[in-house]
Amino acid sequence: MNFLSRLFGKKNIMTDITIIGTGNMARGLAARAIAGGNSVQILAHGDKAKADALAAEFTGQVSTGVLGDAVTGSIVIPAVYFDAAKEIVARYGDGLDGKVYVDITNPVDFSTFEGLSVPAGSSAAEELQKATGAKVVKAFNTTFAATLGEGQVAGQKLDVLVAGDDEAAVAAVAAFASAAGLTPIVVGPLRRARQLEQTGFLNILLSANEQLPQFQWNSALSFVPAA
Amino acid sequence: MNFLSRLFGKKNIMTDITIIGTGNMARGLAARAIAGGNSVQILAHGDKAKADALAAEFTGQVSTGVLGDAVTGSIVIPAVYFDAAKEIVARYGDGLDGKVYVDITNPVDFSTFEGLSVPAGSSAAEELQKATGAKVVKAFNTTFAATLGEGQVAGQKLDVLVAGDDEAAVAAVAAFASAAGLTPIVVGPLRRARQLEQTGFLNILLSANEQLPQFQWNSALSFVPAA
Repeated sequence: MNFLSRLFGKKNIMTDITIIGTGNMARGLAARAIAGGNSVQILAHGDKAKADALAAEFTGQVSTGVLGDAVTGSIVIPAVYFDAAKEIVARYGDGLDGKVYVDITNPVDFSTFEGLSVPAGSSAAEELQKATGAKVVKAFNTTFAATLGEGQVAGQKLDVLVAGDDEAAVAAVAAFASAAGLTPIVVGPLRRARQLEQTGFLNILLSANEQLPQFQWNSALSFVPAA
Repeated sequence: MNFLSRLFGKKNIMTDITIIGTGNMARGLAARAIAGGNSVQILAHGDKAKADALAAEFTGQVSTGVLGDAVTGSIVIPAVYFDAAKEIVARYGDGLDGKVYVDITNPVDFSTFEGLSVPAGSSAAEELQKATGAKVVKAFNTTFAATLGEGQVAGQKLDVLVAGDDEAAVAAVAAFASAAGLTPIVVGPLRRARQLEQTGFLNILLSANEQLPQFQWNSALSFVPAA
């Protein structure tokens, strides 16, 4: 906790990035956010000790709290599954208005593992946008947690595919990725999340496929430009 | 034309690979087929001179003909758009039964450039499979023509994503890719073409996006394993 946090109490202090969740994706995203020089707020789902434990892994400006605390980041990244993301959006209501909301989810139908649990012609990102006054940007759904922790795979920088309708919000997420040592690729409007989520599902299917031992949740989806 | 072709006439000679079409994807696939040591039949859409001209670019066992000629390859690859592929399947009828049919198409709705022109919950590959007795295998829909010609991008071997229901057919396509110096990744059953086609569309969107000058129809979609 920094000087201002001690002075005013963290709820009045703005941070750069709020990460909701304390799992592997939260860890990876926190690592990149801190590597990019950002102040970070980590909100645990109920048990603040989990946020404190995750924060203790990093050296940097990291504050902690629980779901329901005011979101101090101008960028908020729920590092949770799609269903939990919907709950977070509903719970905060207008408390997220105007913020940049990064949707990292792959809304895989885990009952069948055959497809996505969003309506045809939509995406998780678009469904979340319908429910929030935040500016939803799709990103980080094709980067595995472990690779975010490292920031690279086999010496290659990670591509971060970004899609969104709000130009400033997209630029903020791309700048976050760049500062974190990653390669943002701005794909287009938020509805391009339909393609990003199917591609993310494909990426997941490779690591879930025991006949492909080379993929172990630590590979990178990369668009390699000609030399 | 090889010795046996001269002796018996090409229509009685089996080849390894039949490519239908004479465009850029046909050129790229012919290059890889020949690099892999295959005999190749090229069938032009109407004008045999185009097949002859394409064949003249290569040194190898290459025969030519026109659409409607008997398909001599055990693997047939229509290197055409989805609508033309449907016509080819209809025209040959049971003439393709038992063959390995490689569907390379990305059924982009070019009237909107917003999505795919296949029913929700299906794919070009599955639609073609409904219409043919050939064994349909999805492959090469995420590899641009120019990159197939070279066989690599920026020194990296090309990934070829493969999906199909017939194990032997899938193995034949994977073996073809390997022999051609590419890296096959067998993703799963034919319905995984739903993900491959959305991913192929994403790949196309990057090169079509003038704000991404690094992508010029010569990049590679790659799944990079950890070192």
